[in-house]
Parts: sequence; structure tokens; C-alpha cells
Amino acid sequence: MAGNSIGQLFKVSTFGESHGIALGGVVDGCPPGLEICEADLQIDLDRRKPGQSRYTTQRREEDAVQILSGIFEGKTTGTSIGLLIENGDQRSKDYSKIADVYRPGHGDYTYWHKYGIRDYRGGGRSSARETAIRVAAGAIAKKYLKQFHGVEINACLSQLGPIKAEQFDWSVVEQNPFFFPDSTKLDALDEYMRALKKEGDSIGAKVTVVAKNVPVGLGEPVFDRLDAEIAHSLMSINAVKGVEIGDGFEVIEQKGSEHRDTITPEGFTSNHAGGVLAGISTGQDIVASIALKPTSSITVPGKSINTQNEAVEMITKGRHDPCVGIRAIPIAEAMLAITLMDHLLRHQGQNKHVNVQPGPIPGQAE
Amino acid sequence: MAGNSIGQLFKVSTFGESHGIALGGVVDGCPPGLEICEADLQIDLDRRKPGQSRYTTQRREEDAVQILSGIFEGKTTGTSIGLLIENGDQRSKDYSKIADVYRPGHGDYTYWHKYGIRDYRGGGRSSARETAIRVAAGAIAKKYLKQFHGVEINACLSQLGPIKAEQFDWSVVEQNPFFFPDSTKLDALDEYMRALKKEGDSIGAKVTVVAKNVPVGLGEPVFDRLDAEIAHSLMSINAVKGVEIGDGFEVIEQKGSEHRDTITPEGFTSNHAGGVLAGISTGQDIVASIALKPTSSITVPGKSINTQNEAVEMITKGRHDPCVGIRAIPIAEAMLAITLMDHLLRHQGQNKHVNVQPGPIPGQAE
Amino acid sequence: MAGNSIGQLFKVSTFGESHGIALGGVVDGCPPGLEICEADLQIDLDRRKPGQSRYTTQRREEDAVQILSGIFEGKTTGTSIGLLIENGDQRSKDYSKIADVYRPGHGDYTYWHKYGIRDYRGGGRSSARETAIRVAAGAIAKKYLKQFHGVEINACLSQLGPIKAEQFDWSVVEQNPFFFPDSTKLDALDEYMRALKKEGDSIGAKVTVVAKNVPVGLGEPVFDRLDAEIAHSLMSINAVKGVEIGDGFEVIEQKGSEHRDTITPEGFTSNHAGGVLAGISTGQDIVASIALKPTSSITVPGKSINTQNEAVEMITKGRHDPCVGIRAIPIAEAMLAITLMDHLLRHQGQNKHVNVQPGPIPGQAE
Amino acid sequence: MAGNSIGQLFKVSTFGESHGIALGGVVDGCPPGLEICEADLQIDLDRRKPGQSRYTTQRREEDAVQILSGIFEGKTTGTSIGLLIENGDQRSKDYSKIADVYRPGHGDYTYWHKYGIRDYRGGGRSSARETAIRVAAGAIAKKYLKQFHGVEINACLSQLGPIKAEQFDWSVVEQNPFFFPDSTKLDALDEYMRALKKEGDSIGAKVTVVAKNVPVGLGEPVFDRLDAEIAHSLMSINAVKGVEIGDGFEVIEQKGSEHRDTITPEGFTSNHAGGVLAGISTGQDIVASIALKPTSSITVPGKSINTQNEAVEMITKGRHDPCVGIRAIPIAEAMLAITLMDHLLRHQGQNKHVNVQPGPIPGQAE
Repeated sequence: MAGNSIGQLFKVSTFGESHGIALGGVVDGCPPGLEICEADLQIDLDRRKPGQSRYTTQRREEDAVQILSGIFEGKTTGTSIGLLIENGDQRSKDYSKIADVYRPGHGDYTYWHKYGIRDYRGGGRSSARETAIRVAAGAIAKKYLKQFHGVEINACLSQLGPIKAEQFDWSVVEQNPFFFPDSTKLDALDEYMRALKKEGDSIGAKVTVVAKNVPVGLGEPVFDRLDAEIAHSLMSINAVKGVEIGDGFEVIEQKGSEHRDTITPEGFTSNHAGGVLAGISTGQDIVASIALKPTSSITVPGKSINTQNEAVEMITKGRHDPCVGIRAIPIAEAMLAITLMDHLLRHQGQNKHVNVQPGPIPGQAE
Repeated sequence: MAGNSIGQLFKVSTFGESHGIALGGVVDGCPPGLEICEADLQIDLDRRKPGQSRYTTQRREEDAVQILSGIFEGKTTGTSIGLLIENGDQRSKDYSKIADVYRPGHGDYTYWHKYGIRDYRGGGRSSARETAIRVAAGAIAKKYLKQFHGVEINACLSQLGPIKAEQFDWSVVEQNPFFFPDSTKLDALDEYMRALKKEGDSIGAKVTVVAKNVPVGLGEPVFDRLDAEIAHSLMSINAVKGVEIGDGFEVIEQKGSEHRDTITPEGFTSNHAGGVLAGISTGQDIVASIALKPTSSITVPGKSINTQNEAVEMITKGRHDPCVGIRAIPIAEAMLAITLMDHLLRHQGQNKHVNVQPGPIPGQAE
Repeated sequence: MAGNSIGQLFKVSTFGESHGIALGGVVDGCPPGLEICEADLQIDLDRRKPGQSRYTTQRREEDAVQILSGIFEGKTTGTSIGLLIENGDQRSKDYSKIADVYRPGHGDYTYWHKYGIRDYRGGGRSSARETAIRVAAGAIAKKYLKQFHGVEINACLSQLGPIKAEQFDWSVVEQNPFFFPDSTKLDALDEYMRALKKEGDSIGAKVTVVAKNVPVGLGEPVFDRLDAEIAHSLMSINAVKGVEIGDGFEVIEQKGSEHRDTITPEGFTSNHAGGVLAGISTGQDIVASIALKPTSSITVPGKSINTQNEAVEMITKGRHDPCVGIRAIPIAEAMLAITLMDHLLRHQGQNKHVNVQPGPIPGQAE
Repeated sequence: MAGNSIGQLFKVSTFGESHGIALGGVVDGCPPGLEICEADLQIDLDRRKPGQSRYTTQRREEDAVQILSGIFEGKTTGTSIGLLIENGDQRSKDYSKIADVYRPGHGDYTYWHKYGIRDYRGGGRSSARETAIRVAAGAIAKKYLKQFHGVEINACLSQLGPIKAEQFDWSVVEQNPFFFPDSTKLDALDEYMRALKKEGDSIGAKVTVVAKNVPVGLGEPVFDRLDAEIAHSLMSINAVKGVEIGDGFEVIEQKGSEHRDTITPEGFTSNHAGGVLAGISTGQDIVASIALKPTSSITVPGKSINTQNEAVEMITKGRHDPCVGIRAIPIAEAMLAITLMDHLLRHQGQNKHVNVQPGPIPGQAE
């Protein structure tokens, strides 16, 4: 049943399969008065686009987005925004031989058992291709958050297989094809990816996404806590198997005296919490990390079965990303932006006419 | 704004503060015909109840749940179920001196800045006390899932600080006060907790929750994927900073040839995916883990500020859990149950009259 | 499945059957800082309470509401508010003989076929008794709307059977037991009701509810238009079979030149639209009317069947309202208040940081 | 904020303005296995299309719908369905002179005050043109309901201004340009419309929509009652000012002994309730009526103001429907279909594995 919408006041609904006619969606709830045009969306779509470097799939997808409604004379009108990306490169013949086979590690098996019918071309709806529309919708949220609240959202690849970023230099992230924040590791990454390609294998990755200048107060306890909604949003990205806020799984071995972020009149002295306390943003950076599994589309042969429950041997040919984490950078930013935007609007609804006065923000001149 | 409901077809809405008159909620959407009584709910409430062992807080809360509606002659009627737990032990005078202070690592700061007003007694709504109603609601879902689908949901403490379970023997989990699956580590745990108590400090933990016999097909891509909804649900538990499905963050260093779960006519040969592929349950065990931070309620002195932005020194007195992970066991089970129940109903809505036939399930006689 | 919640940002979830232990609910999303106490809610509950006049049922229900959470030192804190009304008068033995009979015109038949199980005591969940909690929740919305926006919501009985109000004098509405705005008809009403009682029959009614000082701009086209949401809200009241906004069904015979409300620099010159244009409030009075059917609980014998599909003859004994419209006055006000409150918050979310400037409101000094 | 979606399990989200590039939407939650193609949708779009008779606007809109996703080899796959209708006839220059004027009776005033910015071309989003996508989405629901449940949904014009249908002969409805069920009144209608056109005025109408073979049990009390959701759905159609279920406003003057529908072992003997009791479908015909106001787009001059609050005189030129009720026939069917479809899925979710047995349906062989 319906599951293709996210958000409550800022709601994104999407459609489209890997090899269908088009991808598209409805972005509903963007406030009026935001200047936005297709070029604003295209920037992030191009960052996600395949074929940008030797390390990503060589498939060509133009991913040219059209805005079909909701904008008048260059500005949002408050009505719903229709988005469309036509699919150009639909080589569906490539996929005919896997029509009745479940590729291991893919959604083939579960889609078939859930729906009893399946568009097998390129994974159909389960393909990460659908994330193109997320990126387009997220670009609208990012622009709004930036323009009206100064919020900046950036992601990077913080680990690729065994190679971890040890420096976090955001200025180099967009300067290298890995979106890696540690430029001392670029040669190691290149070498690793070349070896991987030779093996015909793939590798997992970690992506870290950070939002700066988020207002204090976002998040609606107890179930729609900001961290819970971010977890939902990020875990909904294809291939993601884990989500962390702040120190994440490191907290298991931390003591309370070490973990708690001390507050002084000048502000917080640390950010182990990742910008969320009790489900509400603190005003510090929101820091989240996700673990992306290695894609199962590899040329290493593997065993599987077909829809008649017969054993088969599989090799996934075609043009695939050896590390899906690289192209996930703008997707992670988009999903965080969509969730923050929704919560900004939800929080704003509350306090316009209320006669209560929260105190001063530590470290801010009043 | 409203954020105290979870679920769509099986919806749980809750209220109640730590030191208020009562906790309660509405469980809406439980199908008719389920035999249920207060004793069914009390079992899990007692597992969560403080004062059960020397390792948890010595506060006394009776947590006696009342079912106020929705049951007739011992069975659910399909109408909404009202739940109530009266608060007995309301020593609010203990808390008066922290009325205008933000305890570091707590929701005091964020609640104050979000709402401009705060019930400071014991954390008010941000207290983990609200999870009692989650546990009661989850017990209804657990019983339904068990009785009509054979689903079994169990959680255990898989790590406490530096001490990891290396064996997973579910039969010992309910036999020790740590809910720990590795009985060779019980002495080490005891020793660790005694030392911690002397220090007046607290420690983080990892909880693993597993659902067996989940039908294939649950989850509604692309945003309401089962894993995304589980992440939402588990991350909404107090103190949780990370959620993993299956191998979780270990996938970062895995290769595709290693991670993908091979399918044979006899079934899957491994479960790295944790029972979810492309956001839909595979029929294998659902395996999720969460990281819980060390509580900030410790007697180690810490610096903070008050609502006037003045520096203060804090010691949190009172009766607190040195490791909140221990009492989180039934909460994690409850949240997973609520999410699976909701998705079971959402999936059932779809396929009653559909003339499509999914193929055989590998490893199952037809 | 779940259907016991209404509203999105201001969400009310309820539970409780006619003869159960208690009625209750969760009011989620009330902004912080509103002074509210049980007495504020009791006023409307007492207006709805049976036994207030000879024209309503003589059942005694105390309907004493308790607020269990969400209030601290007399003010809302922004957290969810728990409400409880214990059922005193539970004479369930009265109902045993109708346990397997479908009373015509009641929900007995549909509840049985939907759920296959039924709390037959007094209609169970289908009893109008559940509206007590709506009234309590609505009283919170009414107080907020009044205090922070000056919105006034009042309902009256505009028609009882053949007797129509021809004058609308709001000052007399609360002064007579019919909540009738035309005091010249009070004798006729009294006479009509006495005759009806003798017959053992019941009669339909029309209730008109008006909200004054509603801000312009509430309503979210195209599906969550304000009028559509009001229609949902009012039609969800027991016994309601029709909803009108403004001129309602009279528009069928109106011409465009007659219906359209002319706007002048001093304001609108008429209000055929009932305060809503294109699904958005105009700032004029919101005017809605509902048609309530005659209750089927009458002593006039009627034919029906039982659950074994056998013909039976029925007389509904007990203490029933001959005209349910009379007690529906505070319910209609409550439901309109809940919907306006929800839309006020939804609209507020939008325009806090928007750099667009709607023009002047006609007839208002700037 | 977001308000452009309707439905919970069968969810329709739409976008598009009168003179924008395209209209479109996402239909989410259609079960897999339904054979559907663009021609199925086009039938209803053509019934709604302007220029079909001399009695409707002579604007030309091709309204050719494209299905962009969710269908594979002719059948729905269970994934979201993208719909698109490109706008051909975009004569936006016609509208420039009303850019800063509020046409009385239109959404110009309220859109401006809500959003502070407005696409004034042809009413923008407030134009009834958006209903084209509702009709396309509704056609999917209609086909599903028909094919898997035998549900038939038909609407007709039951009154146009003073001319009421006195016979209900469904076989003539699609044979005349008024969709009128009483062929004895066709000459009167023709005459009335010619006179109206000469006056340059418009007239209101009543549309009645009926669903046959609806299963018993649809509707989720107490707030998501079937009648409440139908009221929401139908009231969300442009120009609708009233909604009735069954006898509607006639119940005001009915007595209980007259209104209640007697049940016999052979079935109900009447249908005053319109197929809904206590918010749940009875299995009888669902009967609903709506009142549509006369359009305000008339050539009779009228007074209004502009955005600077200055008085202006208005004549709405252009090609407009003198009675919008005529073209509302397929829209009313579509909205009822969408709501029934959603509730069918919501109800199906509940009772698949439940061990309760509702009794026999009166009048049906078992």
C-alpha cells in the first residue's frame, strides 16, 4: 500500500522505475516566495549523476529535471510543485535474461513475493534511480533552509571499505571524485578502487552528513523526535543498513561523564550528541552517519534461484557502481534537508502566538 | 506540534510525564478477536520495571496497567483500546532545585528552548518513564503477532560498555538480571557495574532485537520501507543514538561477494541483510541493534548553565540507572512489535483480492 | 483499522464505549503557554450532559473530566494532554436482551459485520457517549482560539423537525433548553416535544455553528481545503447526515450574480460563501450547518433481525433523547474548534519567514 | 502547507495550475495485478472535458493523460503510478488585466492573503482544471472496484437551478449532454440554459452519486467514518457547498419511526441512511448528493477591489461554464471511488487472520 510519500507539512511523493518512461514527484508544502529554478535542482542532480568519474558507473543518464508547476514568475507560490525527469537510456533488452531470477542481495525476491508481479528491468522501482527525484526535491528544501535560515547541509564519504577519513577538511570534499574529506587518502582510494574493479567486486562505505545553523527546537517528541525522523529518512535510502546520530555506536563504550556535552555561558563545549537532545535540535551541528552496503551487482559469480525455486548461477553484467556510497552524497544531503524542512514547518506552526519566552541561547549575543 | 503517535493502521498515541498524575495512551487499529487482558501487558511492564535487580534504579514504580476500553468479554472488539498507568511515587520535591538548571546531556535545554515552559520534575515528558506505555502497547502487538502469525520477538543486551556478548544463547537471557545472552560474562558484568556505581558514573550499551517468523512482504517502498520504519521506531526510544539492520555498520568493510545472502532452493544461506531486502521483509529473522548512550544522570559533578545563562555546577542525585540499556530490553521489543504489526496490517490491505500468485518460498514445503 | 484520531498538527485521539470503564483521549499539539484547567472543559461537558432539561434523556452521567498530563503550574507545556472521564452509570444488564439483535437505524448491524464481535451494551463504541471526549478536547481548542486569536465559536439549534428559527438572536441561545435562537418559537417547541414523547418517537434537527474572527488564510488546497476538513469533522458526529457551508444546498437555485459576495474597500457585502472561498477562510464568519437524523432509539415497535438472520420485533426501552440535535450543540462547536485549531497551526507553519506581503484586509485599519 | 494528497492506503497527490506546463500526480497504493491503460482513464477525462456540448465552456483542452510508471506489461505492479496531462491551451495573455484584481466569488482574494503571491492566470491552482487529475486517478480506483468487487459508481445531475429530476432513469444519463436522469425535463433544461447564456449569468446544481455493490464493513469509526471521509472527499471538489448522505437534510423533518431502515431476513426494506450506519457501509447503495454553487465567472458586471484595496468594476470574460455541475459528474464519481478504494484497503488490512465470524448477510444466499 501507499508508502511513496515522506513528510507531513513538507511532503514529497515520488514515482518512477529504473527503465520506465519517467521519474517524477510532487513536492507539497514549500512556502511561497522562494526563488527557485531548474538550474538550482540540476546542481545536485549532476553531483549524483553517473559517469562523473572513473569510479562510478559509466551509464549515461542526463537526469534533466523539469519543474511543471508551483512556480510563478520565478518564485514558489505555496502550491504543489510537480517534478519530472524523463528516462533517456532505457536499454531494457539487457535485462530480459534475469526476468525470472532473483539476484542475491537485491529486491528481486522481496518484490516478487510482496507483489507477485515485477518490473525486472534494472530493478524497476527498487533501483536507486528513484533517488534522482529525492535529490531534486531535496534541493528545494536545501535552498529554502539556506536562504531563510542560513542552514548549510553537506555530506562527504567518511569511509570507503577499510579506508577511513582521519582529517575532516570540508573544502576538499567537492574537489575530488570520492567526495572524501581527507586528501591524504586519495591515492589509497584510487588504488583500492582499481583493484576492486579488477576483482569485479564491490565495497561498502560510510557517509557523514552535517547540517550547520539549524535552529534550536526542531523535533516533536515522543515519536516524531528529530533523530527518529532523520533515522527514518536516511534509512529509506537504498543500501543503507545503519544510521548514527552524533557519536552513534561509539556511545556503547562511553561513560556518562565523558559523553554528556557540557554547557557553558559561551555554548556547548562538545557535540557528542550530534545536535539532538531528547529528540529536539540543540542548535549545534546535526551530525549523522550512514552505513551503505556493497552493491550486489557484481561480476563475481554467485548462486541463486529463480521464481520456480530452481538453483541458478548468476553474474550481474552491466554498468554498475563498485561503491554506491560515492553517489549517495547528494542523496544523504537531500533526505536530511527534507526532514529538517518538514520539522522546521512543524515547529513554526506552534510558537507564533505563544506568550512564553525561552531564555537566551548560550554563546549568542542577544 | 503533534508528535505523540506512531503507526498508520496500528496507531499508538501516548501521554504522560514522569511525575504527573498518570501515563496513558490509545492503541488504535488492533484487529478484533484477540484475547488479551491486563496480565498479558503486565508481564512486559514488570520486565521493564525499576528495582528488579541491584543493577537498576531502586525507584519503586508499580506500573500497574489498566485497560479502559476496546475489550469485551476478554477479546478485542476492533475499537480503540485505552491504557492507563497511574503514577504512584511522585516525589516532586526532589526536583525543585533543578527547576531552572539545564542538566547536561538531558532534554532540559531543548525542551526549554522549544516550548519556553517545562515540567522539570524528573524530566517531565522527556523522562524514559513514558516508555512504560510503549511497553504496554507493544505487548498487545506482540500477542497478536504471536497468536495469528507465530512471530516471536526477543531482545537482549548484546554489549555493556566494553563487555560484548560472544555467545548468543537466548535461553539464558531471561535468567540473568542483565538480559545478557552470554552467561560466561555475567561475573565480569557484575564486577563492572559495582565499580561503576562506586565511581558514580554510567555506561552505554547495545541492545539487539530479533523477530522470528516474520512473513515475507512487509514494508512499503520507497519511503515507508520496513527498515526505515524500524529505524524510526527504535531511534524514538530515549537514549538511542544508532540503529543497525543486519550487519549494520560492519557492511562498510564488506565486499559485495561477501555481503550478499545467497538463495538456494532450501532457503537463504546467510542473513547479513537482517531480514530486509529493498525495504521489504524476506521471511528471515529481522535483526536490529541499537546503541544506547550512558545516562547523564550521574553523581560525577559537571558544569552547566541555568535559564539565565549563568554557569552552575551540577550533581544529579536521586535513584538512576547506571546503564539504561538493561531496562530497554522490553522497550526495544515493544517498538519492533508495533512497527511490524502496523506493516502487517498495511500489507494485508493489499493482497486480498488480487489475482497474482507469488512463487514458492525456498525451503518451505508448499 | 485505526480511525480514532482527527487532525494533523492538533491531533485528538479517543477511546471508550458507552458502558465501559472510562472514556478518554490524547490531545496532542496544543501549543505551550495556554492557561487551562478542568473547569474550562467542564463548562462544555455540562452543556452536553444529559438530564439538563425535560427534553433530553434522564440518564445521569456526571462526565467529570480529569486532565492527566500536559499541564504544569496551570499552563500547557506543549506535550500531549491526557483526558479521562470515568463512566459511573454502567447499567449493562439493561442491554443483555438486545445482545444478538440489530436495532434498526443503529450501528449494531454494521459493527457486527465489520468486526464480527460487538460490545452491545448501549451501542458500545458507536454510542454518542464518545462525543463527551470530543467536547472536552474541543474546549481546549476553543480556549486557545479565543485567547490568542479572538475566535468565538457558537452553535445553536436552527431547526427541530418542522419548527425553524426565523430570528437568529444569539443572546437567547444559552437561555433556553433547546439552544434555540428564536425565542418566539419556544412554546411551539415545548408543545412539539411533549407530543413526540407521548408517541414514543423521535425527530431530526438542524444545528448551525458559527466561528467569528477567524483569520484569513486557513485551509490547505486542494484536498485539505478548510471546507472539506470541516465537512469531515462535522460529518463524523453521530447521526449527522448532511453538512452545509454558507448557503449550502440553497446555492442550487442561486444565480452567480446573486451568490457571489461582492468585495468593497470596506469589506465583503454579504457572506453566501460562509467564510470560505476556494477552500481558504476569507476572514468572514465561518458558517456551517448540519442535519441530524432522528434517533432510532424509540419505543415505537419496529421490525428487525438478529444475528442468525431471524425476524424479530423490537422496542428500544431505556432513557433516550427524543431529539439528539439538542445535545449536539457543544459537540458541533467542539468539532469546528478542533478543525480550525489544526488549520491555524498548519497555516502558521508556513509564513513565519516568508518575504511576501499580502495586501491590506478590506475594512480593517492597518 | 501540504494539502494536496488524499487517502491513506490509496493515496492520490496532485499538482498543476490552470495555465501551467502540465497537471500531474502520483497514485500510490493501487494493488498489483490490475489491468489498466491510458484509454481506461481517458473515458472519464473525455466525459469531463470542456467543449462536449453547447452547455459547457468552449475552451479546448485535449486532456490526454499519460501513465508514466507503475504499470508493467499492462498491469499495475503495486508501485506508485505517475500521471501527466500536458496543458495545451495556455492563453495566459487573456488574464493579465485581472492580475491584481480579486474576482468576487473566486479564490483570488483568499489565495492572495494566504500566500502573498498568486498565479493569476485562469485561477492558477484554484481553477477546477486540477480536477482532471482527480478524474484520471479516480478512473483507476473505479476499475479496481469494479473488477475485483463488482462496485459500480455512477453520478448524474439531479437538479439544475429550479429544475429537479423527478424520475431517476440511469439509462438516459449518459445519453444527454446534461447527464440528467429525467428525460422529460431535457427541453426545459435546454431552454433554461439558453436564457441563462443570454443573461450572461450562471446557475447552481445538485449532483447525486451512487455506488452499488459496496461491501459491508467499510469505514473506520469514530473519526474516519465512511460518511465523514466521503464528505471530505466530495466537499474538496471546487464549488461544492454542501454534502448529503442518504436523505441528507430531509432527515430534519423525519421522525425516527419513519427514518430508520427496517431490516428483514430478505434485506433492508429502505435506504434512508444512504448505505452508511454509524459510519460503516451497510452493503446497500452508497448515496451522496452535493450542492454546487453557480460559478462566479459571469459577464454580469460586479463590484470588487484590487490588491491595493481600491474599488473596481469587473466583468469576467472568457469561456466559462454557465453550470459547473454538468462537468462535475465524473469528478464526483472519481472522488467517491478514491474514498471507497482507500477504505476497502483499510478494512481489508484488518480481517485476514481474525478468528471471528460475522453472521449471514440478510437477503443473500450463503
